[in-house]
Amino acid sequence: MKFTIEKKLSGKLGRAGKIETPHGIINTPAFIVVGTKATVKAMTPEQVKDLGAQAVLANTYHLYLEPGEKIVKNGGGLHKFMNWSGPTFTDSGGFQAFSLGVAFGTTISKLSKPQSNSFDEREKKSESVRSEGMPPLAKITEDGVIFKSYRDGSEHFFSPEKSIEIQNSIGADIIFAFDECTSPTADKKYQKEAMDRTHRWATRSLARHRELQVESTKSKVGEKKSEQAIFGVVQGGRFEDLRKESAGVIGSMDFDGFGIGGSFDKEDIGTAVSWVNKELPEGKPRHLLGIGEPEDFFLAIENGCDTFDCVAPTRQARNGTLYTKQGKIHIDNAKYREYFAPIEADCMCYTCSHYTLAYIAYLARTKELLAHTLSSIHNLHFIVHLVEDIRQSILNETFDKFKNSFLEGYRKTEKN
Amino acid sequence: MKFTIEKKLSGKLGRAGKIETPHGIINTPAFIVVGTKATVKAMTPEQVKDLGAQAVLANTYHLYLEPGEKIVKNGGGLHKFMNWSGPTFTDSGGFQAFSLGVAFGTTISKLSKPQSNSFDEREKKSESVRSEGMPPLAKITEDGVIFKSYRDGSEHFFSPEKSIEIQNSIGADIIFAFDECTSPTADKKYQKEAMDRTHRWATRSLARHRELQVESTKSKVGEKKSEQAIFGVVQGGRFEDLRKESAGVIGSMDFDGFGIGGSFDKEDIGTAVSWVNKELPEGKPRHLLGIGEPEDFFLAIENGCDTFDCVAPTRQARNGTLYTKQGKIHIDNAKYREYFAPIEADCMCYTCSHYTLAYIAYLARTKELLAHTLSSIHNLHFIVHLVEDIRQSILNETFDKFKNSFLEGYRKTEKN
Repeated sequence: MKFTIEKKLSGKLGRAGKIETPHGIINTPAFIVVGTKATVKAMTPEQVKDLGAQAVLANTYHLYLEPGEKIVKNGGGLHKFMNWSGPTFTDSGGFQAFSLGVAFGTTISKLSKPQSNSFDEREKKSESVRSEGMPPLAKITEDGVIFKSYRDGSEHFFSPEKSIEIQNSIGADIIFAFDECTSPTADKKYQKEAMDRTHRWATRSLARHRELQVESTKSKVGEKKSEQAIFGVVQGGRFEDLRKESAGVIGSMDFDGFGIGGSFDKEDIGTAVSWVNKELPEGKPRHLLGIGEPEDFFLAIENGCDTFDCVAPTRQARNGTLYTKQGKIHIDNAKYREYFAPIEADCMCYTCSHYTLAYIAYLARTKELLAHTLSSIHNLHFIVHLVEDIRQSILNETFDKFKNSFLEGYRKTEKN
Repeated sequence: MKFTIEKKLSGKLGRAGKIETPHGIINTPAFIVVGTKATVKAMTPEQVKDLGAQAVLANTYHLYLEPGEKIVKNGGGLHKFMNWSGPTFTDSGGFQAFSLGVAFGTTISKLSKPQSNSFDEREKKSESVRSEGMPPLAKITEDGVIFKSYRDGSEHFFSPEKSIEIQNSIGADIIFAFDECTSPTADKKYQKEAMDRTHRWATRSLARHRELQVESTKSKVGEKKSEQAIFGVVQGGRFEDLRKESAGVIGSMDFDGFGIGGSFDKEDIGTAVSWVNKELPEGKPRHLLGIGEPEDFFLAIENGCDTFDCVAPTRQARNGTLYTKQGKIHIDNAKYREYFAPIEADCMCYTCSHYTLAYIAYLARTKELLAHTLSSIHNLHFIVHLVEDIRQSILNETFDKFKNSFLEGYRKTEKN
């Protein structure tokens, strides 16, 4: 993997560049589309590519539980298995092992098996369980984390070594070191403990990654594996000193790039990100994990982030929320029943080129699966191109103008 | 609409031909893909076209209830509304008004509103209600049928005139006369009564169709409407004399083609269809309504049917049943967990060109929507190309050979 900075944002940390991977180039800043279970929900890879997406991020935790990393590997690795020929990432599984296990304590309890098979219900369940502060499913030790599957309550163990081995089997271009993602409500003492542990786990992740690289270089069959790049993950919660310390420690290790994990105060995302990015080495790419609202990108990018991933565009699409330059709209609004025009008149996406909002709203009302596909295409196109437009504005030296103009329009009330 | 016979099957009623519609040619015999609610479930129109489908059939009953024919019309008519530029059909709404109302008696009862919004549940519910013989939702008079919506129990009325007006608004290339679709269990006395009523309704359907054609020819805005073709529907249950009588009566009317409705004994489908097709005028196309299992096509085609529609390929796909030349397989079979080859090695469909059965089985287990898309593409490709291959075998004079060879393979047990 190679990262090149093409242009810097004057007086700020932001930059435009490119990440070269074995499966192609990612022009940055870039939004990385989430394909949690080795599929971008409700879309074919061709639809994902056609809307302008450059890369896909899959989730180690989900793929480990089902179908299992061995099946992904025997199916030819992530790219071939899911029919996506472009660059790929996998996260470390840390966030899900903790967050789908609800909380971040030390006791273990069992989440009852979900009753419903409906598509989004399990995801919703884990979200609501998390926010309601029910008993945790994860137990953390120095060695790793014991967690219960969100699917069936079965017990599993992730260590840094295990996460790297799984990610090696899955075979994405860019993988992440195993980290502890703390609860936003944890106190500073715990944040510090967890951060120090994450640093030790980073060392172990990197060591296991290097071992596997050497092994695969020796083995002809696995020769390609040595091209995997690994990103270290910065933690530290909402504390400036911890974030700086973490960025200093992780940034000094021999990672190919960095992830910024954990939670931030939404209104202060730019400041928090700048603490980290001032410490990280400039010449390596920085991925902000799990961030994806339109306003966030401007703040994160001008403060030095290069790539992003988030389920929001596709999840919101499936829930009927559509992005427009005038803000989000909800498809169930009665005024869209007879709205015989595209979601956005000037949008170039497949959905807006071929369908009226009235048609998509009708599909959504009548629970037709095509509603999910068309809405996801529009939302992803919107976000991918927003980040691409930000990139262009850096290259053209019009970042501030574009930022102000976009945000002014975006903060308008719901579309007429 | 123009129908041309290109080649006849020696000594039999079967033929290969073409139907020319305002939106393109349908080479027959042809399988018409069902897009009940102005969408082929889980697929884009491009995916439908790319798999080789020539035409789509939408359902008048469903579109009338939601979004309503006025919205389809104001959305530019069926083709534009759903982004399908090829030929289209709508059925008359008769079958659903009766069958989704469960039975075929004269009392009215209310089907409770479905509790679940899950995608297939409502369809399943109406199916199970029907098979369990619960109270009917439809009341039949000479004028038409009063029925309760399968969606919310609201009361509605279809007459032949109303059905034609709705179909005119929806704007498909080929529409059907309004008919009474009798219960398979009705006695001969009732079948005769219903058939005679269907014949009177056919006369009324045709009359209203002609009036609308004249109106639309006068109106510049609606000029295109005059190109709609109308098919009359033959009924008569399982009785040879009634079927022949119905074909004689309907066949003598000035329809552009014919539908064959109602139920048959599965094992005797060829015989029953031949009763009808011997009576119908040779020079007009014949559509066998709602038939779509692989074995059925050979029998129906050699006995003179030209087109078919059926929800089976897509519904079975969503339920995990996949067609192969060695018979149907079910995706949940444990042996497919690690089946790292396409569903069928020699299948040219998008799904088989890009994905292993192991991947699709994984998507299905984990309830990913892409499973529906990939499975539907394969099943529709299988059925559309099977009927296309039958067409070619008529043109090449190899029908019997192809029939025997296909059926021998298809009746084999589940794939190894």
